[in-house]
Formats: sequence, C-alpha cells, structure tokens
Amino acid sequence: MEIVEVGPRDGLQNERTLLSTEVKVEYITRALAAGVRRIEAVAFAHPARVPQLADAEAVLDAIPRRADVSYIGLVLNRRGLDRALASAGVDEVNYVLVATDEFSQRNQGMTTARSLAQWDEVAAGARAAGLRTTLTVAAAFGCPFTGEVAADHVASLIARAAVAPDEICLADTIGAGVPRQVAALVTAVREAAPDVALRAHFHNTRNTGYANALAALDHGVSALDASIGGIGGCPFAPAATGNIATEDLAYLLARSGIESGVRLDGLAATGTWIAERLGITAPAMLGRAGNFPA
Amino acid sequence: MEIVEVGPRDGLQNERTLLSTEVKVEYITRALAAGVRRIEAVAFAHPARVPQLADAEAVLDAIPRRADVSYIGLVLNRRGLDRALASAGVDEVNYVLVATDEFSQRNQGMTTARSLAQWDEVAAGARAAGLRTTLTVAAAFGCPFTGEVAADHVASLIARAAVAPDEICLADTIGAGVPRQVAALVTAVREAAPDVALRAHFHNTRNTGYANALAALDHGVSALDASIGGIGGCPFAPAATGNIATEDLAYLLARSGIESGVRLDGLAATGTWIAERLGITAPAMLGRAGNFPA
Repeated sequence: MEIVEVGPRDGLQNERTLLSTEVKVEYITRALAAGVRRIEAVAFAHPARVPQLADAEAVLDAIPRRADVSYIGLVLNRRGLDRALASAGVDEVNYVLVATDEFSQRNQGMTTARSLAQWDEVAAGARAAGLRTTLTVAAAFGCPFTGEVAADHVASLIARAAVAPDEICLADTIGAGVPRQVAALVTAVREAAPDVALRAHFHNTRNTGYANALAALDHGVSALDASIGGIGGCPFAPAATGNIATEDLAYLLARSGIESGVRLDGLAATGTWIAERLGITAPAMLGRAGNFPA
Repeated sequence: MEIVEVGPRDGLQNERTLLSTEVKVEYITRALAAGVRRIEAVAFAHPARVPQLADAEAVLDAIPRRADVSYIGLVLNRRGLDRALASAGVDEVNYVLVATDEFSQRNQGMTTARSLAQWDEVAAGARAAGLRTTLTVAAAFGCPFTGEVAADHVASLIARAAVAPDEICLADTIGAGVPRQVAALVTAVREAAPDVALRAHFHNTRNTGYANALAALDHGVSALDASIGGIGGCPFAPAATGNIATEDLAYLLARSGIESGVRLDGLAATGTWIAERLGITAPAMLGRAGNFPA
C-alpha cells in the first residue's frame, strides 16, 4: 500500500507556528529520504486565509524534482488550479469537497452543490494539463456542525461528479469515525465509483485513527494519508489532534507484514525534528517509544 | 463485552504523583457512577516497592460494597494473597506471570518457571477462599529486554499451569503488539485452554492499542482492561504511555454498536479529573475532543 505524506500541507496548515520555506523544504526532503514517494507538498489557498502555506511556489521551486516522486498541490478553485499549472512543480491536484452544506459554507464559502460544480471545472482543467486528480470528500465520517453524515450521501455526491477523479479520498476531518463506519462508507463509495482508486484520510482525534486505517486497507483502500510527527489538527475542532502519524502508521503496517516502502527510523527522527520546529510535542509515539524489536 | 477498569492499579502504579486514599476512593467511586462494574482496585505489593499503592487495605475499607460490583486485587505471591484474604473486600485476585525470564527476574525476582509454580499455590489458596482468579501473562506481545515473544511460548506457559485460572489475561505490557499478533496469540492460547475466558490488556505506547482492542473482541476475547484517563505507563519503558483509556475505548465500542454498559460523559469527566490530580495531561482524548455526535 501507499502512504501519502500530508504533513507539509494538512499538518502545517493547522499549526500556529509559521515555518520558513527552508524548514518546509527540509521537512519534505527528509520525508523523501525516509522513503515516502507521494507528498501533498503545498496548498494554493489565499495567503491571507492560510498564512502557514503562503509560500507554495517558493516551496515547489526548492524541493527536489525526481521521476519517482509525485507532488500533490491542494487546489480550492479555478484560481488555485491556475497557480498549480503555472508552478510546473505539481504532479497531482487534490480538490476538497466538504460533505455538508454547513461545513462547506464555513470552510469554502459555498454550498456542497456549488463546490461539486466547481470540481468539474477544476478537474477538467487539471486533466487537460496532464495532472492526476484526487477528489477528497471532507467530513465524510461526520460534521462538526450537523453531526452524522450518511454513507449514502457521500456516495451520491461522488456519483454526481461529472468528471470522474483518478482517485477518491474519504476524509475523517474531525476524527469521529470507527472501523465499522469505514467498512460501510468504502462499500457505498465503491458501488458509486467502481473503477476509481480509493484513498483514506484519518485524524486521531478520539484515538480511532489507526484502527480506521487498518480497516480501510482491509476493505481495499490503496493509499492512506498521514503526517510525519502526527502534526496538524482542525481549526473547526480546536481540541482535535492531527492526522494519524506517518511513523506510527508505518510501525503498524510493518509489524502487520504490509509493505509500504518507508523507513521507520527516518520517519521517527523527522517527527521529533518537525515538532521541535513547531514548538510542540509530537502526537506521534514512535519517536518517544522507539521501534520494537529495538 | 466487559470493561475492566485498571486505572486505580496499573494506572496509578506508574505515575510519579502519590495520591491520597481519599482521591483513590473517589476515582473508584466515579468509575462506578459511570457504569464500570469490574475494577482492579488495589495491589498487594510491598509498600516500599510500590509506594503509589501502599494503602490497599485502606482503599478497600472505604470503597462502596455492592453486589453488582467485582473488585480485583493484584497479588504477587503468597504473602499478597494472605493480605487479600484478610482484607475481605476483594472478589477476585489477579496474578501476573511475566512471559520471559529476563523481565520476570527484574520485575519479580524469579524465573518464569518459579513464578508459574507460585501461581499454582496462590490460585489454590484463592479458590479455596471462594475468590475468582485471573492469570495475566505480562509481556505476552514482546519483551523490553529480549524482544519477540512467540505465541506458542505463551500458550505453553498456560498449558503448564497446574491450577486452571477462571480467566486468562493477555497483556501487551510495553505496547508493541498489532492486530495480526492479537489474532495469532488469542488463537494459540485458546487451543491451550479452550474452556477459560479470555481478557486482554493493551498499552497505547505505539498507537496500536485501540486497533488491538477491537481485534481481541473480533477473536472472542470477552473482557478488556483500560484505565480512565489513559493514565499509567511502564517503569521499564519510560517513554511509554499508559493503558488504553477507558473513555476512548468506550467511544470506539459505542460507535461500533458494541454494548459495554458505561457512560461516556462520566468516564471522560473522570479522566480529566484524575489527570488534574496527577498533574498530567490525560493521554485520553475524549475529554478534550468531546463526544460525537455532540
């Protein structure tokens, strides 16, 4: 299976400390050295709204270009896509569709339906430029404002996309899900889009994230998002912790006999390093506990 | 399934702060109020070796006696059993057999074989007094000194016990295990002791504890240890975090449709409360994140 490193985007986006371009580049370079080959490196968001990620173009200019590495840029709208296309350093675009109107309005200033129409425009433009596309459905396991989100609702949103993505990512943005829900949602979405690769994105807000990750793999999801150090959070759930940690996920996978191509020691050391840069204690545990067997 | 609250014993034993008898009694009383019905309340260890738990008799004298509640006392040897029998407040004894000689020597000053012989004496005495017995196998998923522990080794230890316990508890003392290992170990132990109830004990040291808990239930384990607040740790693994948290386990179970009879709000509030008493941030997350749906 494939680990998608999202620390440089989803991780940093929700931390208070602003990092220099140089530190971001080192974070990404260290991830590459630890064996990660697919990285959500930047977001093309408004710099005033997301100052943590304001230097997307500068980061892309400075990170290593490698044929075996795929960089993902988060794109929120047509303007973001134009920036991604102009930057020349992005291999894939990730578009976020928020599953509920209430959360979508607050997060992106538009209804889910309007965001879905915008997806079609962004996806068509990305595809025309030869970029791979992912449609992430945020709050797919629950909404902080309206509560439960039905698997059928998520599946129907995906069925309504006029342009099929290369990949669908099911995101538990607020860390509410459990494995049973993962099974139900993956099953419903696969019925709606049988030929599209599935990826999943878990936060460990209520300590269910790693169990959810294993459940997703059990049900055929081929890629999992994680952030080195487990950094991040959610601005709409202030007490929430970050993404599941890449190093802890990698430990779980390695000891489960699942190949992911990454090196635990490099990931764990990078998790400790980025947490120091951010002035936080990493939610990741492997860096503190050490590998087993040592 | 049944939650066994071990915070008053395994949780407090590994915290630096010593609590008064009154606070321990309140911890247990709050657990009862939140619906917990089986509690490892005390240890009959040498007060100089485990000062955190030196007041076992005083705690037992002060906690509520209820017909629907079962109190467990940890017993390390014949002397501990005598204290348990004299106290009159203990319904069950839990005896810990450490799976490897190296860890057993350091922890209990004897080999695993000698500890197993001592189990027979303790178990016979407990049974004669009408107490339920649990044989916990510590380090069953890995040893901090010698590394991997084979499932067959654990099963063979259990097969060699001359007095069969009422329950076997498989303990991942250092938080090294993963669900695949849970499945293998439970299967091996069930073959060795087909008629004995199984319980499991997980630490979340490397973020695998909750996935392990679900895996144990999937394979027929009927009881799970957890500590309110997720307090505790392991003196032999200083960076380790504590037991899986009762409130986070209860969230996972409740949202998975598994009945455990406890109340999330009472558990979460108690986790925050005990962490304040200990001067730590609770590893448990539900108290910070809140329930979902709210």
